[in-house]
Amino acid sequence: MDISTSLFVLTASLALVTGQTSQRLGACPTLGCVFPPDQADFLPGQYFDLRLEVHAPVNGSEAFNDGEPDENFSVIISKEGGEAKSIAEFFDIAEPAIEKWDFSWYEDLFAEDADTPSVVNVASKIYRRLAIYEPGNYVVELSYYGDKKTTAEWVVRPLATEKKAKNVILFIGDGMTTNMITAARLLGHNSINGKYQSLLQLDKFPVLGHQMTHSIDSFITDSANSASALYSGHKSTVNAMGVYADSSPDAFDDPKVETIVELLKRTWDSAWGAVSTAAISDATPIALTGHSRSRYQYGSLVDQALNSVTNYTWTNQGGPDVWFGGGAEQFYPGDGSYEGKDYYEAFAQAGYDISLNKTSLLEMGNSRKALGVFCQSHLPVWLDRNVYTENLADFENDPLGSESPALDLPGLKEMTLKAVDILHHRGGKKGFFLMSEGASIDKQMHALDYDRALGDLLELDDTVRATINHLKAIGELENTLVLVTSDHGHGFDVFGGVDTKYLAEAETGRQKRTAVGVYERSGLSQYTVPMEGVSYNTGPNFPVNWDPRYTFAQGLAADPDRRENYRVHKSGPRSPVSSTPGFDEVEDGLFVDAEDATDGFVVNGTLPVTEASGVHSLTDVAVFAMGPCQEMFGGVYGNVDVFYKMASCLGLAWPDGTPPKPIGGGFGNETRKG
Amino acid sequence: MDISTSLFVLTASLALVTGQTSQRLGACPTLGCVFPPDQADFLPGQYFDLRLEVHAPVNGSEAFNDGEPDENFSVIISKEGGEAKSIAEFFDIAEPAIEKWDFSWYEDLFAEDADTPSVVNVASKIYRRLAIYEPGNYVVELSYYGDKKTTAEWVVRPLATEKKAKNVILFIGDGMTTNMITAARLLGHNSINGKYQSLLQLDKFPVLGHQMTHSIDSFITDSANSASALYSGHKSTVNAMGVYADSSPDAFDDPKVETIVELLKRTWDSAWGAVSTAAISDATPIALTGHSRSRYQYGSLVDQALNSVTNYTWTNQGGPDVWFGGGAEQFYPGDGSYEGKDYYEAFAQAGYDISLNKTSLLEMGNSRKALGVFCQSHLPVWLDRNVYTENLADFENDPLGSESPALDLPGLKEMTLKAVDILHHRGGKKGFFLMSEGASIDKQMHALDYDRALGDLLELDDTVRATINHLKAIGELENTLVLVTSDHGHGFDVFGGVDTKYLAEAETGRQKRTAVGVYERSGLSQYTVPMEGVSYNTGPNFPVNWDPRYTFAQGLAADPDRRENYRVHKSGPRSPVSSTPGFDEVEDGLFVDAEDATDGFVVNGTLPVTEASGVHSLTDVAVFAMGPCQEMFGGVYGNVDVFYKMASCLGLAWPDGTPPKPIGGGFGNETRKG
Repeated sequence: MDISTSLFVLTASLALVTGQTSQRLGACPTLGCVFPPDQADFLPGQYFDLRLEVHAPVNGSEAFNDGEPDENFSVIISKEGGEAKSIAEFFDIAEPAIEKWDFSWYEDLFAEDADTPSVVNVASKIYRRLAIYEPGNYVVELSYYGDKKTTAEWVVRPLATEKKAKNVILFIGDGMTTNMITAARLLGHNSINGKYQSLLQLDKFPVLGHQMTHSIDSFITDSANSASALYSGHKSTVNAMGVYADSSPDAFDDPKVETIVELLKRTWDSAWGAVSTAAISDATPIALTGHSRSRYQYGSLVDQALNSVTNYTWTNQGGPDVWFGGGAEQFYPGDGSYEGKDYYEAFAQAGYDISLNKTSLLEMGNSRKALGVFCQSHLPVWLDRNVYTENLADFENDPLGSESPALDLPGLKEMTLKAVDILHHRGGKKGFFLMSEGASIDKQMHALDYDRALGDLLELDDTVRATINHLKAIGELENTLVLVTSDHGHGFDVFGGVDTKYLAEAETGRQKRTAVGVYERSGLSQYTVPMEGVSYNTGPNFPVNWDPRYTFAQGLAADPDRRENYRVHKSGPRSPVSSTPGFDEVEDGLFVDAEDATDGFVVNGTLPVTEASGVHSLTDVAVFAMGPCQEMFGGVYGNVDVFYKMASCLGLAWPDGTPPKPIGGGFGNETRKG
Repeated sequence: MDISTSLFVLTASLALVTGQTSQRLGACPTLGCVFPPDQADFLPGQYFDLRLEVHAPVNGSEAFNDGEPDENFSVIISKEGGEAKSIAEFFDIAEPAIEKWDFSWYEDLFAEDADTPSVVNVASKIYRRLAIYEPGNYVVELSYYGDKKTTAEWVVRPLATEKKAKNVILFIGDGMTTNMITAARLLGHNSINGKYQSLLQLDKFPVLGHQMTHSIDSFITDSANSASALYSGHKSTVNAMGVYADSSPDAFDDPKVETIVELLKRTWDSAWGAVSTAAISDATPIALTGHSRSRYQYGSLVDQALNSVTNYTWTNQGGPDVWFGGGAEQFYPGDGSYEGKDYYEAFAQAGYDISLNKTSLLEMGNSRKALGVFCQSHLPVWLDRNVYTENLADFENDPLGSESPALDLPGLKEMTLKAVDILHHRGGKKGFFLMSEGASIDKQMHALDYDRALGDLLELDDTVRATINHLKAIGELENTLVLVTSDHGHGFDVFGGVDTKYLAEAETGRQKRTAVGVYERSGLSQYTVPMEGVSYNTGPNFPVNWDPRYTFAQGLAADPDRRENYRVHKSGPRSPVSSTPGFDEVEDGLFVDAEDATDGFVVNGTLPVTEASGVHSLTDVAVFAMGPCQEMFGGVYGNVDVFYKMASCLGLAWPDGTPPKPIGGGFGNETRKG
């Protein structure tokens, strides 16, 4: 936030924002950058790095000072009503050296087409591993180029240190919206005259909230950034996690913020784990421990999970007690693993039991740390693992790296229940934190494969149901805050019914659309109606027929070109577009996949023609809460607030700079970890 | 629900459901129909009619008994654990006469194309104005054709009779989803580095819930049906309100259920009113008093609002104390009014003050009943009333019926605040109920005019804010349950940003799509950024610029053909499709409007080509609650539960058959009305 109040500055910022969809650097509209930036919140005692940058654009609309960045910038910090001090004095640390680099960007699409980048020279400093212990409002003021100032107002939140919940289980339905939850209910649960005869487990949660998912510097988020907000209380930039994205070339030197598992480990020495139907190195699970501007540094991020941050002094989160998912290509030695090393071996050396299939998962003991990697890439989805099982043989996803298929696969439920047992055993009186992710709700919505996405949503719901029952059985339900939320949405909805027989037989695209029945013609769901010869034995909370004649008319607001017949894709996950022979994928873009839904009608998309899939959307997402502190999760709030609510419930705040003192925290763990 | 358990019946019902998207009669899959049907809920003492039908299909897949319906059907009712009695005995009324009629339907789209209707002969009885006072479970059993039975299990809910809220204000954002609320927040409120500097009023409500909106007999609802569920606790059929839709030809003889304003009037003699930016005869406001299978009987429904049900003995709701909206064509004498009569005159005769413009609305006293009809059809939307005001002159909507424009128009806020004053005065210690509807959120989403829809959502939010402040000022805030919810959704979302300059200048449809920026390229909202020469003075909770270069990429999952340039339609509401010269609108369907968004790219739709607009969607919608009983509105529930929660909070249950007794109901009104 620029606090100069002259008209000049106002005009200057007006000029800047007109090109804002392309940004020089997110969260830094001025030429001086403070990260964490204006409006950042902190947990008392939470570690963070402070990055300062001064920009000198060489060319383009912002060209300034002949491209010479001011190396003599200065920075002060003050608590509201208190004295301003230098950063070195305030935090009692040494002054870091100046760093310099340059980067370039395109001011808009016209500049991109013309290949006229704007170059920026940068002078920077970074102060590492700081913490503010006293709650209150703080102001950081960066002065540069003589009279220019950039200020950041920070809030260190006032928070209790009492541990009200022994355990927290955070379920994340990746990309899951209220619209999808509604559709999944209609798929999996029978109703008579409009009254459901059974409900989703989510429908039974006592407290409901909405969280806002937008990024710090764009209103649509990705899963790294949004997971990081949930885990750290700091919004970030698309593809970044555990850091504010700076402009330097190094993806691992950006200013870090401490995450919930780091705080939990150093505060209470609790157990923690992550379970996902994605690759375990995928954004949502890896953001618990990852500190990088790039989610695509999979191998390095797996190393960070095991060994914590190693290039700087930082909290050691001890490595996950439980880590279950896909993503074997980051574990067997090769191109995908960090420095080509064998990470199965590295985890084994660190004392982990390792499981590579469902059979051994279920046989694992509960006392040792556990790594379960069941396939390459993401786990095949619930629909392929439970209904169209013959598709599994088409995958080349053996967890040891061969091209054979992984056939002995657990689902989210098996992984999560096993994780609870291990964490319960290992956490003991210290409790545990578990993140369990239904990842392919998102991944299959990207592919416009609505059936596979909703099947995985039903799997998530079934997992939540089983987990609550299991917590009850082991006597931990009343000690455990159970949350189910999402990280962002897709603009999905169901808008009617489809007579797929009529659609298939109609001859033109426009005639086929007559098969879509809206309002009273949507009729009743046929997915829960038993039909002779059709039974999948997938349990009471799943459809009894995935391929009825009357299906759902459904889709996204954001699409690539595609062909729709509104039927389940029996032979494997959908691929709506493909590159087309005779056309250049980048120059000409993608077209409808010649093999997808061949009896359907073509719909041209609304996205750039180079996009192969649907994209994330803006919508707030739901938070379902039950257990200790549930009352904190009603109403509407930011995704970062999910972190502060969990942190408050877990007593993670360090309200003074002294080592943690013994306090009555309940659950028999009478001392905070030193 | 058919209770015969033979395999024969199971097979028969399987055969039936395969054609269920076309239905013989909603909520009656068997040949014997009971309305209210199986799974119906009732408030203790709530009036209802009981309709029984026996069907004899003459032809088609269900042909039975040579098309002769069994006139000797019998029906019994029993309370759980009690003795079965005939309806006449149980309710102490006379046995009604048999009625007979026939109707026809198409079993599917193939039958429709071939014009081969299925004809059904019907024998029926209706028992009118019944009530069950004792809470509990009841079973109604209809026996016909010798061995066939249809049963309906009913629940009369156990409910308190204490009045916990003096007043209830129910705001309905028609068609409003969480996705739209998120988009409106981004439009109207500024954020810095991801933290909003101001919020929607909705964001400040302490309690949040979700309600399921589906119909009784189709999973997509319309606004009549869903409003009726909110007001009566009974789900119904598309286009129906205050009744279960039977198969008879008369749209006003269907079995009725009592609504909240009827119950409130006869229980507490409170004041009540409705305000809408739609025609006041439109589904959402008129369903408070309307009892008809057809929402399109506008004139008759206005008569029902003024005079209550007149063709049968029924509760007299006394006529609205306040009734503000559009829809003048049902008031001035002519084709649109009931029997061509002058309803301005009829309301005046009934003691109403009448206002036809904003000036006289604001000057009205608070003591007399008030009718305000400000234009023909629906009110022009907030964007045209406040930003692009020159468009108002293009309307031919004078409330007296001439073709001149209505220019002196109130908004939802002025109407609602005036309504509160009048209801507060007239209700006195007896309190009041007000329904206030932001109608064009829905209507403009239908038209794919996202800016106009979201503008009206911001107007609704601004009205809620002003109403809460006003309630505080008049000392009624703590006595008033304030609810904000919706009746259904549209599959809308924002999925990125758009460089409209680049889009306009690109030459092909596929090139234009490059202008859509997703994820980090969505950038920041430009609608809240002041720009030289652009200021609408529409207040702090609205955009400062509706036409920035960088706009939102947004849309629906269900569309007609259309052309998108993602810019505000300055010259008036959008019309995405039109009939095309040389083509037949019914035979050939609709095509992109040649005059809409001419610099945009064409997207073909997913809806039948005869659909002129987007359609409703499945999604659960949010319920925001504050005030007495707010704690009842958390979690997930059906739209009918909104009625039971409100009725419980207002003490509307009659738990015994005797006249209401004096009880301590608070608020000084010590007796229930006799």
